[in-house]
Amino acid sequence: MPPYLSISRRTRRTPFTDRVTAAGVSAYTIYNHMLLPTVFTSVEEDYRHLKSAVQVWDVACERQVEIRGPQAAELVQMLTPRDLSDMMVGQCYYTPMVDETGGMLNDPVTVKLDEDRYWVSIADSDLMFWIKGLAVGYRLAADVIEPDVSPLAIQGPGADDLAARVFGEEVRSIRFFRYKRLSFNGADLVVARSGYSKQGGFEIYVEGGQHGEPLWDALFEAGRDLDVRAGCPNLIERIERIEAGMLSYGNDMTRANTPHECGLGRFCDTRSAIGCVGRDALLRVAREGPLKQIRYLEIGGEALPPCPEPWKVNAGGEFAGEVTSAAWSPDFGVNVAIAMIGRDWWDEGTLLEVATPAGNRMARVRNRSWL
Amino acid sequence: MPPYLSISRRTRRTPFTDRVTAAGVSAYTIYNHMLLPTVFTSVEEDYRHLKSAVQVWDVACERQVEIRGPQAAELVQMLTPRDLSDMMVGQCYYTPMVDETGGMLNDPVTVKLDEDRYWVSIADSDLMFWIKGLAVGYRLAADVIEPDVSPLAIQGPGADDLAARVFGEEVRSIRFFRYKRLSFNGADLVVARSGYSKQGGFEIYVEGGQHGEPLWDALFEAGRDLDVRAGCPNLIERIERIEAGMLSYGNDMTRANTPHECGLGRFCDTRSAIGCVGRDALLRVAREGPLKQIRYLEIGGEALPPCPEPWKVNAGGEFAGEVTSAAWSPDFGVNVAIAMIGRDWWDEGTLLEVATPAGNRMARVRNRSWL
Repeated sequence: MPPYLSISRRTRRTPFTDRVTAAGVSAYTIYNHMLLPTVFTSVEEDYRHLKSAVQVWDVACERQVEIRGPQAAELVQMLTPRDLSDMMVGQCYYTPMVDETGGMLNDPVTVKLDEDRYWVSIADSDLMFWIKGLAVGYRLAADVIEPDVSPLAIQGPGADDLAARVFGEEVRSIRFFRYKRLSFNGADLVVARSGYSKQGGFEIYVEGGQHGEPLWDALFEAGRDLDVRAGCPNLIERIERIEAGMLSYGNDMTRANTPHECGLGRFCDTRSAIGCVGRDALLRVAREGPLKQIRYLEIGGEALPPCPEPWKVNAGGEFAGEVTSAAWSPDFGVNVAIAMIGRDWWDEGTLLEVATPAGNRMARVRNRSWL
Repeated sequence: MPPYLSISRRTRRTPFTDRVTAAGVSAYTIYNHMLLPTVFTSVEEDYRHLKSAVQVWDVACERQVEIRGPQAAELVQMLTPRDLSDMMVGQCYYTPMVDETGGMLNDPVTVKLDEDRYWVSIADSDLMFWIKGLAVGYRLAADVIEPDVSPLAIQGPGADDLAARVFGEEVRSIRFFRYKRLSFNGADLVVARSGYSKQGGFEIYVEGGQHGEPLWDALFEAGRDLDVRAGCPNLIERIERIEAGMLSYGNDMTRANTPHECGLGRFCDTRSAIGCVGRDALLRVAREGPLKQIRYLEIGGEALPPCPEPWKVNAGGEFAGEVTSAAWSPDFGVNVAIAMIGRDWWDEGTLLEVATPAGNRMARVRNRSWL
């Protein structure tokens, strides 16, 4: 029996919570102090449905940190080793954010709303506290707030059709990691082509909680014949995110890891991103290379339970790394896993041993994810 | 049916989680990205037992932020309006911590370990991010880390007896909000007289996760005849914390509130705590007084459900404030509640109307809590 979740004001509701409840949510996790649905029918059935139809996800827990003011661009660049100098209004960038030692503090999507205004759409940590601390300490002319913005995702093969019925045909022309401002209910909402699923789709940044239920209802009304259902980016055991190699902050990477360890070296423009406070440390990492890095593992044997704490990975008795996420993939007929593996053992095809709750299992290293 | 909680590495386990599971935990909440037990037998039975016997609580989620270095004292004073200049090694201070506008970021207990070394024992927000941001921005010579320290609380009338059996008679002489370093299992652990219950007791700052299970087992072995049980500071619906008027960050106060609004004005030494970054804003508040403040309400009628989102409080149709925590008190035979009430209605005895899920109810303002 899994434990129950105790809910209070501290574990914040979202503008969609009543609809999510009515849709039959059976489990939540807490993400950014907020309710994030994790299971409706069952993990397997939710996943089958996502791959074949269209789902609406309450991802309001992707809280926004708004940064605005004359020095907003400077402050945003201080947060990330990714070079933002060419970023245009209308673009969304995946931006690893690091502390002064190059340790990962979050891996948000940054949305450029205007030359002096950004939203940082955060993973599970109070990144706003770090940004505010820097702004105060460096006395920057930038305001840092949490606006009333609650993302709602439309994901799955039917996402374009469903979004077009509610926002108009224009949504189809939105390119990946771009957004347009589209009208709903008298409001101009940021609609981006993005989301935490390989199936693709949209994230609607619902600005103003009062638009939440009308938008939810409009999507379910318009998508009846598309078999639209409530779904969720199950960050724990969602098979699809592991198959797709999508990392989860707090699960597969923590403050202890550099972006290079997380396989995010391509987002580290350490030569040009001069303002980043973690740049000095990351220059060093870039020169020497990481000592461990994210890899994918196929773990043999029967279906394993989820991975609530890291499973040790061994190579002939030596510590080789840890598995941080795992799930049974019905499509590939194998346990798929994400792991942090030492450089001596990270080559494709290396055979390792994983200490799972179901005993030791053989595993094979992959350099690429499955999808 | 309450929802289930999905657990992953991101919702971190504690050194005591296996023992808590064996003790029959039935519900958790997530606090500082970590599992915090909320129910064992039932809320009412757990509460009866706490008031009559002794409990051991897994409060490892009270994570520590360690601040050390030549400018550690200066940095800690920047965080809080409470004057720390007279604080001695061996003392614990309740310290509201505020941003540059005087908004509450956390309400931790600060422990002075040495002249240049502090632990900040945090409520539910990533306060470390704020502290690190300030340290980097102001270029302070201070290191800010999360050490391997997991508090375990002993609470209830039998706490002194139980602690004495494990740590020796010396525990009895520890004064309120003081600590001593006492030996267990070859380690010197900080044992403080503190805890999130009116019953009183101790918090043991278990330094080194390997000491967790041995300490848990020693306490249960030594306390068998004291009817020791696993318990928890149920932050949601614990009757006792509301009766005792103990506020919970995220529930009864948020970033939107000043310490004065939270009734914490006595911890704001805005004249002497010159280094506090929120001092300018709080000087203004101290002069003008807050426009709303925490009050206690007795809500009439039958037992109410818990309060997962604020309930509006009205006075003759006008908005007067919100209830943020509520529970039925068997001892007082009334619904006890914590609320933020506007200055026009906060006098003792004022009659107000609360919009509860069970309909509108009359309520009476109290200036003091029940215990």
